[in-house]
Amino acid sequence: MAWFGQPVLIEELLFKTKHGIVDQSLHARMGAEPTNGDGFGLGWYGAGSGPAVYRSVAPAWGDANLRELAGHVESPLFLAHVRAAIGSPVQQTNCHPFRRGDWLFVHNGYLAEFHLLRRELMLAIDPELFGDVQGSTDTEVVFNLALTFGLDDDPLHALELTVGLIEETARRHDVAGAVQASFGVTDGATLWAVRYATEGPARSLFASADVEAIRHLHPENPRFQRLSPDDRLIVSEPFSDLPGVWQEIPQRTAVTVRRGGDLNERPFSPRTPG
Amino acid sequence: MAWFGQPVLIEELLFKTKHGIVDQSLHARMGAEPTNGDGFGLGWYGAGSGPAVYRSVAPAWGDANLRELAGHVESPLFLAHVRAAIGSPVQQTNCHPFRRGDWLFVHNGYLAEFHLLRRELMLAIDPELFGDVQGSTDTEVVFNLALTFGLDDDPLHALELTVGLIEETARRHDVAGAVQASFGVTDGATLWAVRYATEGPARSLFASADVEAIRHLHPENPRFQRLSPDDRLIVSEPFSDLPGVWQEIPQRTAVTVRRGGDLNERPFSPRTPG
Amino acid sequence: MAWFGQPVLIEELLFKTKHGIVDQSLHARMGAEPTNGDGFGLGWYGAGSGPAVYRSVAPAWGDANLRELAGHVESPLFLAHVRAAIGSPVQQTNCHPFRRGDWLFVHNGYLAEFHLLRRELMLAIDPELFGDVQGSTDTEVVFNLALTFGLDDDPLHALELTVGLIEETARRHDVAGAVQASFGVTDGATLWAVRYATEGPARSLFASADVEAIRHLHPENPRFQRLSPDDRLIVSEPFSDLPGVWQEIPQRTAVTVRRGGDLNERPFSPRTPG
Amino acid sequence: MAWFGQPVLIEELLFKTKHGIVDQSLHARMGAEPTNGDGFGLGWYGAGSGPAVYRSVAPAWGDANLRELAGHVESPLFLAHVRAAIGSPVQQTNCHPFRRGDWLFVHNGYLAEFHLLRRELMLAIDPELFGDVQGSTDTEVVFNLALTFGLDDDPLHALELTVGLIEETARRHDVAGAVQASFGVTDGATLWAVRYATEGPARSLFASADVEAIRHLHPENPRFQRLSPDDRLIVSEPFSDLPGVWQEIPQRTAVTVRRGGDLNERPFSPRTPG
Repeated sequence: MAWFGQPVLIEELLFKTKHGIVDQSLHARMGAEPTNGDGFGLGWYGAGSGPAVYRSVAPAWGDANLRELAGHVESPLFLAHVRAAIGSPVQQTNCHPFRRGDWLFVHNGYLAEFHLLRRELMLAIDPELFGDVQGSTDTEVVFNLALTFGLDDDPLHALELTVGLIEETARRHDVAGAVQASFGVTDGATLWAVRYATEGPARSLFASADVEAIRHLHPENPRFQRLSPDDRLIVSEPFSDLPGVWQEIPQRTAVTVRRGGDLNERPFSPRTPG
Repeated sequence: MAWFGQPVLIEELLFKTKHGIVDQSLHARMGAEPTNGDGFGLGWYGAGSGPAVYRSVAPAWGDANLRELAGHVESPLFLAHVRAAIGSPVQQTNCHPFRRGDWLFVHNGYLAEFHLLRRELMLAIDPELFGDVQGSTDTEVVFNLALTFGLDDDPLHALELTVGLIEETARRHDVAGAVQASFGVTDGATLWAVRYATEGPARSLFASADVEAIRHLHPENPRFQRLSPDDRLIVSEPFSDLPGVWQEIPQRTAVTVRRGGDLNERPFSPRTPG
Repeated sequence: MAWFGQPVLIEELLFKTKHGIVDQSLHARMGAEPTNGDGFGLGWYGAGSGPAVYRSVAPAWGDANLRELAGHVESPLFLAHVRAAIGSPVQQTNCHPFRRGDWLFVHNGYLAEFHLLRRELMLAIDPELFGDVQGSTDTEVVFNLALTFGLDDDPLHALELTVGLIEETARRHDVAGAVQASFGVTDGATLWAVRYATEGPARSLFASADVEAIRHLHPENPRFQRLSPDDRLIVSEPFSDLPGVWQEIPQRTAVTVRRGGDLNERPFSPRTPG
Repeated sequence: MAWFGQPVLIEELLFKTKHGIVDQSLHARMGAEPTNGDGFGLGWYGAGSGPAVYRSVAPAWGDANLRELAGHVESPLFLAHVRAAIGSPVQQTNCHPFRRGDWLFVHNGYLAEFHLLRRELMLAIDPELFGDVQGSTDTEVVFNLALTFGLDDDPLHALELTVGLIEETARRHDVAGAVQASFGVTDGATLWAVRYATEGPARSLFASADVEAIRHLHPENPRFQRLSPDDRLIVSEPFSDLPGVWQEIPQRTAVTVRRGGDLNERPFSPRTPG
């Protein structure tokens, strides 16, 4: 999930919502895995230089430090992620978000048969970046490929090149359904999200519909009653079953959220680099 | 779950069974909680002096060290437990089994409103034992009360006195449904299990019916084809859906398993200590 | 160590100082133990309600999350503690600071033969507080005794009663040298520190001498050049070997630091309760 | 450290020795770092298929599970390692020993400027192996290069090619003093150890001199009085200050220990592959 708007205590969205992401770590309904207990991460912008990242291998639902942080850190822009490991080890360096400079990156999904493609994809990473790859997940490789392909200049184009390269590499290895993804990426000033699958339906992705809807969601919460049209939430699973509050992001679509809550959609079309 | 019989690699029962306990940590069907990801423990008898205990706060399904141990330690008698924390912190000292001397103790269930009763129950612990209580769970208190009431001499009687004391203390505090439990306890020579609830149905508890059934469960497993009538399994949830393999232990019942697989049932009747 | 003054990024004092507390976790010079690698904790006042606490069982020098927090959280008042376990388990609930309501408490030292005195001291804790004792350290018991004896009303008096009770209990058990301590305690508005030992010299404790000294300590640090006379540091070990920067707090002495940097000393005289 | 001889409880060598490896984790005297608190690992041969590996990010001196294992697992051949991280994250996948099939590998030392050489060295790993590299240490890369260069057929030759490749790669990047190492490697039937540095003195390495010496070391230990000439210990630091018990392995030397305690030395001479 991602929040971009006025500064809020992180717990407002992580813990004080109906079916929020921490609850989803224990009981997801729309993800491929009902339990996402293999670590989590939280990245936020606030005091200090660049984004902060808190990552833990404990399940999000039981991590005392996460509750502390969420209850005592305010941020206008943060990403949270809960993980269900698919083969790779449960370790902090495999937890999202990944960071470089001002950038944060999260990924809900997987690369098919990553084990087979890993070497080739890592070779395509800018050698200057290679030495800083610390974990063993597909997502860290995706992020470093996106950095290689110009994330700084044009994030969505860089992600289209990244996915294009992965799909081409997968084809050469006879791997079908290469990419299953919702991506979230931000540089602290703009937030991008992508919903995409090489084959079949992509993982779910939703944006908060409008501020009135959010106020409606938390009538008892004075903080949310103060919400302004500048505030936006992007989530893998809606926080609540209330109809009308969420707009589903279509398949193969990228959204751009700028400060002020403005949300823009466009098609996401992978292309082969070079 | 508990195994008592010929020495087996622990993984045979922890990982190589259909719906074994590690699988239950992620997808329990009969427990109160579908996910038991707040740590686990394994206690076994083998080399060295007294029982060994391996406890971890990681979910059992993702703990690399548990897989290693289970694959490389053989034991004729071991207990495994997966935990769903109810309020108390996720820390090794709150993971079962608890140990003292040759004794191991596990508990599937809870004491109602333990927070209210904790001080009074801890005061009833033998002062010699008090200093060694290291965690904050109800189960460690139950174990120390049982030690106080003569576990060494007559384990089932000691547990009846323990439950009696808890129920009496609960009554004085107007706490209903004081004890919900299946207990497992062993001194390395005999294994006892208790199914009991103060009110309503107790947590499920099953014993392996007979050796033929277990052979039937794993026709492909040469190790299990070598099973003898001496082997016994006690579990909270059956490993498999095959009918006929498991016998349910009745409510308010204690079973005693001696070396040789002999299983004896008798009523479990709490009584207030003198 | 404790900071009370203008809001600073926590890393300024935890990581960017010469021989700061994180460095002390690996190479302490004045403590009883050269290595303090059995967990650490950080408590701070800032956004949200009451103090936040981050505690970890990892050594402070290697904890990635501590670096993140320290680099991205600003606070006008925080306590940090590194732990060398003496017998009790390495677990978050044994890490300082301990918290209740607005209060934070840290302790550098130990109670002699705590194992022998534990039960009696725990019985002296207000029964209303007993249920919330989660760990197994002497410090958590000291803190709860202080709460029992009126920490809210008169913190130094409450600590004098607490130490008096411990010393009297120790005497009855023929335990010598009952208390070895520097305590730090705060309610978010005032900071108290105590240096005391029942016998022999107490653990070292220092206060920053004056703002000029701190500016001198970090001539290259523009933040510290902005220091005002309102800022105060209390530490177990001076951050630097520069003479003149620190004033040692005398034995059996309590200091009170109020907002504005005002530091007041008075004798610390344990007395037996009731 | 490595043990190869009659089966012993692992604790005899890990915990019950004077200045054993766990004590070294807190107070090393001969290593580059006095504290080795960034995780540890234990690999052993015994029950089950192939070697077992237990790795933890906790400091060895405080890990309750390590004490349990060491006290309850017997093995004729095991390796133990304590880690002082130099830049790479503290995570299980960075802890030694590394394993593949029947092989275990430990390394005390470092590759100079590994960050610069990492990509090129990883490209030299057999693509079949690349996908299984899970951590980010130099040692895991060294191990996979050795596997690539024929560890299965001729371990010392494979290590000479590995070191030759690393030194050549370092030269091209103007990196001096490429390799600082004592290596330990075993397939469960034979144990090899190497002491080598590209420049200057290599990390210390010692072999137990003879069985009489070990008996002398533990006069009070009946187990050691039963030691046979078949037993051998290889350590980075001698367990004791007694003169005459240990023979230092010379610089640029490889030793081969076969079942039966036979120890053979030969020069270790890196050579460039192909």
